[in-house]
Amino acid sequence: MKARVFVMLKDGVLDPQGAAVQHALGGLGFEGVEGVRQGKVIELDLAKGTTEETVREMCEKLLANTVIESYRIEMA
Amino acid sequence: MKARVFVMLKDGVLDPQGAAVQHALGGLGFEGVEGVRQGKVIELDLAKGTTEETVREMCEKLLANTVIESYRIEMA
Repeated sequence: MKARVFVMLKDGVLDPQGAAVQHALGGLGFEGVEGVRQGKVIELDLAKGTTEETVREMCEKLLANTVIESYRIEMA
Repeated sequence: MKARVFVMLKDGVLDPQGAAVQHALGGLGFEGVEGVRQGKVIELDLAKGTTEETVREMCEKLLANTVIESYRIEMA
């Protein structure tokens, strides 16, 4: 089975990567880009029967830094 | 309006970041993690009326390296 974890910086946390992308898009002539935030997707191939609870534990312990990042889990 | 772009390494392209995460999860005692791939999410705040076609152009020109990465666009 598969799980997908999305990790984004929390609102209010400075995102220099996102700012760099926004600046670069402007430089390439794309107009109307009002904001860019960049985050991570982590796709996990898991043994059958792994619960969302286990994935949540992985997020809390390793995948996300919950002080500055929020995460969202999608089981598939 | 918002667009979300997911950028993943193509199958067959080595993903050392994903491998490191997989190894670390094993070290933390999580069993049954059979594979991990790590990618990027880019959330764009766009001016009203921006088309998916424009976002696709952003991907081709800047957001993804289409030689080794594939991307998926979600308009919201």
